[in-house]
Amino acid sequence: LREARIGHLATADGQGAPHIIPVCFVLDGQNLYSVLDQKPKRASLTRLRRVRNILANPQAALMVDHYEEAWDRLWYILVICRAELLQDGEDRAGAINLLRQKYDQYREMEIETNPVIKLTPHSVVTWGLDPETT
Amino acid sequence: LREARIGHLATADGQGAPHIIPVCFVLDGQNLYSVLDQKPKRASLTRLRRVRNILANPQAALMVDHYEEAWDRLWYILVICRAELLQDGEDRAGAINLLRQKYDQYREMEIETNPVIKLTPHSVVTWGLDPETT
Repeated sequence: LREARIGHLATADGQGAPHIIPVCFVLDGQNLYSVLDQKPKRASLTRLRRVRNILANPQAALMVDHYEEAWDRLWYILVICRAELLQDGEDRAGAINLLRQKYDQYREMEIETNPVIKLTPHSVVTWGLDPETT
Repeated sequence: LREARIGHLATADGQGAPHIIPVCFVLDGQNLYSVLDQKPKRASLTRLRRVRNILANPQAALMVDHYEEAWDRLWYILVICRAELLQDGEDRAGAINLLRQKYDQYREMEIETNPVIKLTPHSVVTWGLDPETT
């Protein structure tokens, strides 16, 4: 979970319609953080589907998994969590710093003031993981 | 979408709690199909979270995407769809055949009688795809 470069975040709107998006994220102790980086204008970031969903319904799920053609080597980690939008504060700034440590790509992007999605896990399901590699 | 080996399926339960799972799937004209293959006993297949969600709430989303470290090459295809469980019938058997054509791995698995999830798309969002490659 700490080393994975990409995960998939599922959210749902107030009517239970699911949405899914690939996300870069960082794990900080108990929580996971993902920054909104895909739109140039800050105002539009909070109109993203995942943000509107989180504001209407904080239930979320993050999937980190591995695919290869040898199906006996598949694995996944599913994190059921509560999602929250951080628009300011130390928590948000700290998450940006951690994301820049993990992803070189973020160091050159102007994301200092971008909102961050905080995911607080409340349960984890793992499947197919070799105990030796966890 | 046709060639992708793996996608991620998001569903949600009756209370809007999202779930996500990596899935192998096949595209047949308009619809997508995924077989329940991960449990040995047929009875337990319908207790899978994705199945219980679909029965309670048919709204679903399938994500097919590409990640690499060169972020200008990222892309995704998001298919918003209606999910349905096929327990028998020609549609189900045809889907199994198509899945076995696409995935060698399924040819050796005893999935002839397994339930299939049918996804009927009603909208598609694409992002980052080079028009030349679509």
